[in-house]
Amino acid sequence: MERRHVLKAGALGLAASAVAAPAIAQSSPEIRWRLSSTFPKSLDTLYGASETFARIVSETTDGKFQIQPFAAGEIVGMPQALDAVSNGTVEMIHGPGYYYVGKDPTLALMADVPFMMNVRQRLAWMHVGGGQDLINDYVAKFNVYTIPGGNTGTQMGGWFRKEIKTLQDLQGLKFRIAGLAGQVLAKLGAVPTQIPGGDIYPALERGTIDAAEWVGPYDDEKLGFAKVAPFYYYPGFWEGAPNVHFWIGKEKWEALPKSYKEIAKVAASHAGMELTAKYDARNPAALRRLVAAGAQLRPFSQEILDAAFKASNEIYDDLSAKNPDFKKMYDSLRSFRNEEYLWFQVAEYTFDNYMIRSRVATSGR
Amino acid sequence: MERRHVLKAGALGLAASAVAAPAIAQSSPEIRWRLSSTFPKSLDTLYGASETFARIVSETTDGKFQIQPFAAGEIVGMPQALDAVSNGTVEMIHGPGYYYVGKDPTLALMADVPFMMNVRQRLAWMHVGGGQDLINDYVAKFNVYTIPGGNTGTQMGGWFRKEIKTLQDLQGLKFRIAGLAGQVLAKLGAVPTQIPGGDIYPALERGTIDAAEWVGPYDDEKLGFAKVAPFYYYPGFWEGAPNVHFWIGKEKWEALPKSYKEIAKVAASHAGMELTAKYDARNPAALRRLVAAGAQLRPFSQEILDAAFKASNEIYDDLSAKNPDFKKMYDSLRSFRNEEYLWFQVAEYTFDNYMIRSRVATSGR
Repeated sequence: MERRHVLKAGALGLAASAVAAPAIAQSSPEIRWRLSSTFPKSLDTLYGASETFARIVSETTDGKFQIQPFAAGEIVGMPQALDAVSNGTVEMIHGPGYYYVGKDPTLALMADVPFMMNVRQRLAWMHVGGGQDLINDYVAKFNVYTIPGGNTGTQMGGWFRKEIKTLQDLQGLKFRIAGLAGQVLAKLGAVPTQIPGGDIYPALERGTIDAAEWVGPYDDEKLGFAKVAPFYYYPGFWEGAPNVHFWIGKEKWEALPKSYKEIAKVAASHAGMELTAKYDARNPAALRRLVAAGAQLRPFSQEILDAAFKASNEIYDDLSAKNPDFKKMYDSLRSFRNEEYLWFQVAEYTFDNYMIRSRVATSGR
Repeated sequence: MERRHVLKAGALGLAASAVAAPAIAQSSPEIRWRLSSTFPKSLDTLYGASETFARIVSETTDGKFQIQPFAAGEIVGMPQALDAVSNGTVEMIHGPGYYYVGKDPTLALMADVPFMMNVRQRLAWMHVGGGQDLINDYVAKFNVYTIPGGNTGTQMGGWFRKEIKTLQDLQGLKFRIAGLAGQVLAKLGAVPTQIPGGDIYPALERGTIDAAEWVGPYDDEKLGFAKVAPFYYYPGFWEGAPNVHFWIGKEKWEALPKSYKEIAKVAASHAGMELTAKYDARNPAALRRLVAAGAQLRPFSQEILDAAFKASNEIYDDLSAKNPDFKKMYDSLRSFRNEEYLWFQVAEYTFDNYMIRSRVATSGR
């Protein structure tokens, strides 16, 4: 076998194959990267997107481009992850921009802010409405390039020890909630606090805090909040469609061959789609189990939603006046959102509305 | 340059490079396929998914795997496309299963049937809920393998010359509508008819037909129906989330190297996501223009929706009793749908509901 190929190579012209070699080496180089997820392995759906992404990149390049995913804390913790990819400690990370709202609130707009849009609308804004170009123009200042990498869908509004019906019920309420959403709740009289995920349960149990938000049924179930704060409110109006990005060091990104760049983009699309699909597939049964375990579902009242919407818009006006980056991205998001809901209220919303009503009427025939 | 490489190849050992050659040839073979879309170029969003898919496959394989897209009719027309991919006339096609409902109604379930689910729920069913495995087990009888390749989102209910308020208004109504939806409308007293897209306008103008459905604002606008049948009904309850597949000849699929299979899957995911995002981004402005041109938006009445839902379920029961393939896929879809809406009615739906109401209240602030 070996000898036959040697002869064949000679017969067909050694020069041609020798010239081709460098081109192959250039277009499919062997690359090893590390990907630090900002999520712990316990958030298996979110962390799993990094595993899916890495698997696709490896399989589509015959193992030449290998990306090793790490959970939050294995290389760097979530709070340091953006710095780590900015300064080249890791080649890439996976997480939502709003984790870094303390650096600049514009980073929250990349992920989600109160009363913005739903998952499909955000995908349309990023991929067709110019949003992803705006994001990458902006994040260049952090020395990174980003690719959309999944969305949890609308989250829940969190677990409350007592019912919350009016604005009065929010006064002084110690609520575990972060970022811009925390600022909105503070304007309404609540006291936003920050506690690591593992400390929430005992704090709710002892009454050190009155309420806490996490993700949605599938992730919330694991933490057992229903036992100590049974009122489970919806919707999480501050997270209608929290989008997660893959963030890649800018020089590392630019040095990739074109084929690897395209592979990274479509691998991220597929991993992102799968992330949302997993939540959508897993949340219903988790919700059933939570209700069986004592969770009491409650919608936020119109009074609370209206006050929160007003407070959110005041914060956006404030930030827009002070921060041109924020204003540029917010204006794009807001006008896109308003057009989107003009259309979604017609076909999409009325279809879902009928399916929900007929489900109730026919007990889910 | 050439000479230096010749020397280098000799110095490093010709045998090694000659042995490596077959491995490279196996893992990255040069392949040329033809992709027949079932859509004309005038449906640029739907047809465009084939162009996006082909571009990604080429770019991610450094041009080694080339797929040339053709519009409907360039090689085969839409009605013959499934046969063409089954018998190897073309390597692949792009289109919705319901085009071939005449062969077997199970093919409609792959795409969409009346009162089923929304886009995210269908993605979750296919990718996480076992739906795509069920589909591929089933379509093996047509000698094909399929990959999900996009969704238009909920379509509109069509253009009507007169208002339709009650079931009485549907009696004898000549409605251009196909497939299972036509059977549902027939049960309600309408007369479903089939007319090619280009003949709809004159038929509506002359009153040869009373109503016609097409897609949604972006595609409908081009055909100018608002001038001759101004009542624009919603939602298209027979197409809550019409899903389009890429269909590949089974032997052709199985002969692909693993890396090309994975590339095809993620290229289809990205092209499909972009297809939906384009409709979502383009429909709002088209809807505005249609209303400005005289379209009058009307929701289907509860009476009509309830009768259509009942008729649909009767048809599903009928088909399930006669057709085990239909029953198997329908049972999976129905139980998945009912679980999905249990969850979607909580966070997703109430978020959209508030955003729609606040948009109206604040004139889209």
